[in-house]
Amino acid sequence: MQQGKASIRFEHPPGILSAASIAGKKEGEGPLAILFDEIVSDPLAGEKTWEEAESQFQKKSAQKAIEKAGLSPNHIRYVLAGDLLGQSIASTFGVMDWNIPFFGLYGACSTMGETLSLGAMLVNAGYGDHVLCVTSSHFASAEKQFRFPLHYGNQRPYSATWTVTGSGAVILSSEGKTVKITGVTTGKIVDFGLKDSMNMGACMAPAAADCIGQNFQDFGVDAGYYDRIITGDLGSVGKKALIDLMAQKGFDLQKTHMDCGIEIYNSEAQDTHAGGSGCGCAALVLCAYIVRMLEEGRWRRVLFVPTGALLSPTSFNEGQSIPGIAHAVILENMEGETNEWSM
Amino acid sequence: MQQGKASIRFEHPPGILSAASIAGKKEGEGPLAILFDEIVSDPLAGEKTWEEAESQFQKKSAQKAIEKAGLSPNHIRYVLAGDLLGQSIASTFGVMDWNIPFFGLYGACSTMGETLSLGAMLVNAGYGDHVLCVTSSHFASAEKQFRFPLHYGNQRPYSATWTVTGSGAVILSSEGKTVKITGVTTGKIVDFGLKDSMNMGACMAPAAADCIGQNFQDFGVDAGYYDRIITGDLGSVGKKALIDLMAQKGFDLQKTHMDCGIEIYNSEAQDTHAGGSGCGCAALVLCAYIVRMLEEGRWRRVLFVPTGALLSPTSFNEGQSIPGIAHAVILENMEGETNEWSM
Repeated sequence: MQQGKASIRFEHPPGILSAASIAGKKEGEGPLAILFDEIVSDPLAGEKTWEEAESQFQKKSAQKAIEKAGLSPNHIRYVLAGDLLGQSIASTFGVMDWNIPFFGLYGACSTMGETLSLGAMLVNAGYGDHVLCVTSSHFASAEKQFRFPLHYGNQRPYSATWTVTGSGAVILSSEGKTVKITGVTTGKIVDFGLKDSMNMGACMAPAAADCIGQNFQDFGVDAGYYDRIITGDLGSVGKKALIDLMAQKGFDLQKTHMDCGIEIYNSEAQDTHAGGSGCGCAALVLCAYIVRMLEEGRWRRVLFVPTGALLSPTSFNEGQSIPGIAHAVILENMEGETNEWSM
Repeated sequence: MQQGKASIRFEHPPGILSAASIAGKKEGEGPLAILFDEIVSDPLAGEKTWEEAESQFQKKSAQKAIEKAGLSPNHIRYVLAGDLLGQSIASTFGVMDWNIPFFGLYGACSTMGETLSLGAMLVNAGYGDHVLCVTSSHFASAEKQFRFPLHYGNQRPYSATWTVTGSGAVILSSEGKTVKITGVTTGKIVDFGLKDSMNMGACMAPAAADCIGQNFQDFGVDAGYYDRIITGDLGSVGKKALIDLMAQKGFDLQKTHMDCGIEIYNSEAQDTHAGGSGCGCAALVLCAYIVRMLEEGRWRRVLFVPTGALLSPTSFNEGQSIPGIAHAVILENMEGETNEWSM
């Protein structure tokens, strides 16, 4: 059901049947280590190239999510997948073996929000009973794609984020489960004209603020409606910008805001500067941490807002700005709720 | 409503409210010239780079489709867009000015099928009354992305296709119109292990055969059910492969098959070898020709099957195969139909 200008409230909220997280070595040394389903310490994951390695992470997380749901691949009606690489090849080679009808999505680091949004829309509409949403990123394939070859050992400013190596996968289902997606707010592309690819948090914060503000407006709520509002990978610099931008809109996000990029590393000890980033960042933190906190009832309602910076090496080198996008997903613990929508 | 393993039959088939086509100079010298809404003879479309030029094509086609529908951008609930460039930047910079909630999609040259499939699913479910589906490609930005700089003047084998410069845009609507999308079949990634990026028709034909065969199976029909079965950009080499593969499945596609890549150029006179390709190829032929033939009732029912080759310069150079994907959309002239679904 349409809600305001950019949101949908689900009449049959899709449940999160399972969530799986496969993390890289560095992520496995961070504060969420104990929560990951698997930590792959070989950065090549047994493959010959960084891109194939990233595909392996995606394959493993998808496989684990299917297994945790007690399903087999032929029970999955659609897979919605994406990554950061040109032509989304990590996803292609990650999921192609299973012969599941496939929608490739690209929303930069917001892609997990995009897969969950469209996935939930498909399940709510009855198009599929089980839909797999999966994204990944890999530090080395991303550095190669967007920055410099690893061997250069280049320096990074403190505003730079560290691309997360890992993949998260979720099975959305029409079957009842504790944690459900009750609504979504679809982001617009927001361009503040910023051009610094070493400060993507600042590029993405305006899009996050726009999407969160739109969510509040569409549902007639404010920051206190959610136990947590969790952005994808703004990092410490983007977090400040977001809180300022929301304050300008008249909303105080200080108490409820969290950022997956800040949670995933111990930035001082791990030298990750502003925090983690990448499609895998929001996906890992969602699957390892956020879903669990909701399942255990420690949080009742979360606004999950993966954030993406829309640039390519070409657009950046040609002097284009770096617009941002964010997609918001309302996750709720629905245990004991008689109405499916608790508003 | 779910139909078979990979298809949806729409209970409220979305109508094609408008379709717009903006073609490049070479396309404007081809057999469909008279049908395009505009032919842009400057390959840079007034911009400084090929990528910005491609964005201009996408902006113009979207604008034209909105205008032909008698709408303004704020009537559009969602835009679903994609292109061939890394991180889909032609789309980002093509549609960002309008502040419309945005889903970025990547299905290589099948992307127009993917946008129409998801767009129709969203409209049928009541998530939006007007949804914009748009894709583009550009010869020069694609050569730069996938092959060689234009100035090399490199030779091309006869199996190679010519990337179409242009963009097509469709407004899907819950309002009644003559031509509707009555169903979709979502493609799987199909990998025959082929590795020749100069023969993408052969790489994509197995995916087209799989998707068309699945459509026949899911709806219990055969080739004769459709007035035309129209693939995206198999070209002359891929067409032969598709007809052979379908014959092996027991279906004769000779009478009904057409390919947008073959239709868009006069391949001998225009030296385009196997035909046209790119996200813009299927989109242009759909918007300029197929929708019109349906509107005029010359065809009653078409299976539109854009085809994509899933490779990146990196995956190709690393020796990976080139898997294919295809998404099938059933387009019908519903004039005078009392039942919305005519089966």
